[in-house]
Amino acid sequence: MSTSPTTNEREEGLAFQPKFDSSGLVTCVATDAATGDVLMVAHMNDEALRKTIESGEAWYFSRSRNALWRKGETSGHTQRVVEMRLDCDQDAVWIRVEQTGAACHTGRHSCFYRKIDAADGDTRLSFVDADKQFDPTKVYSK
Amino acid sequence: MSTSPTTNEREEGLAFQPKFDSSGLVTCVATDAATGDVLMVAHMNDEALRKTIESGEAWYFSRSRNALWRKGETSGHTQRVVEMRLDCDQDAVWIRVEQTGAACHTGRHSCFYRKIDAADGDTRLSFVDADKQFDPTKVYSK
Repeated sequence: MSTSPTTNEREEGLAFQPKFDSSGLVTCVATDAATGDVLMVAHMNDEALRKTIESGEAWYFSRSRNALWRKGETSGHTQRVVEMRLDCDQDAVWIRVEQTGAACHTGRHSCFYRKIDAADGDTRLSFVDADKQFDPTKVYSK
Repeated sequence: MSTSPTTNEREEGLAFQPKFDSSGLVTCVATDAATGDVLMVAHMNDEALRKTIESGEAWYFSRSRNALWRKGETSGHTQRVVEMRLDCDQDAVWIRVEQTGAACHTGRHSCFYRKIDAADGDTRLSFVDADKQFDPTKVYSK
């Protein structure tokens, strides 16, 4: 990218100057444009950001596979971007999307299908909105 | 923490086994419980997670200051946690909060006050919901 902008330029300016971390990534939060639910949290590198902006479909960078990844390329569960926003320090992106099928690789609509509850000093999870919309063993079997 | 769980245990189980990155952090997305808007993206370490769960108020870990941080401790703009969820691989947390005042240190309700627009191959930002609710030079002057 170009020379590093000042904090004020990055926060108050209208130039798109994403602040990538040491791995070349920004964090991306995808929410359901219809319900506001958080669907997933993932990462984008420079190329994923550019492809998302150009195509209007969500692209990410998989840290575990070390590869660019078009959301839904295997499952067909793509994300059409309705609006894309950037945070104050330009290191996080929020996309509001129309989700085809389910966002989570486990088959659920959202990756956030468990609630954290504290009771008597013990922290436990409980399922919420956890119905599977597809069988991941079938969708990812290829 | 305890011994590392299998992927299946982490994804389908009800044990709280957060997966911290090499810096000991998970990503946290805070949304406005009333509107669904994403307010901010930040990080929590083990202690911030625990304090958030115990107190029902959002605590974070600041990477730039390398310090635990109760949201609103300087500004008074605290976040009361209405619901707390964990994602499939337990490395991201979503909290739905009641935000007192503004979430962003620039004085805006949300950190995501700029939209990304692509036009004629050029990517630009534009302000949206960018009114300042407080003057950061006054609130953080101490």
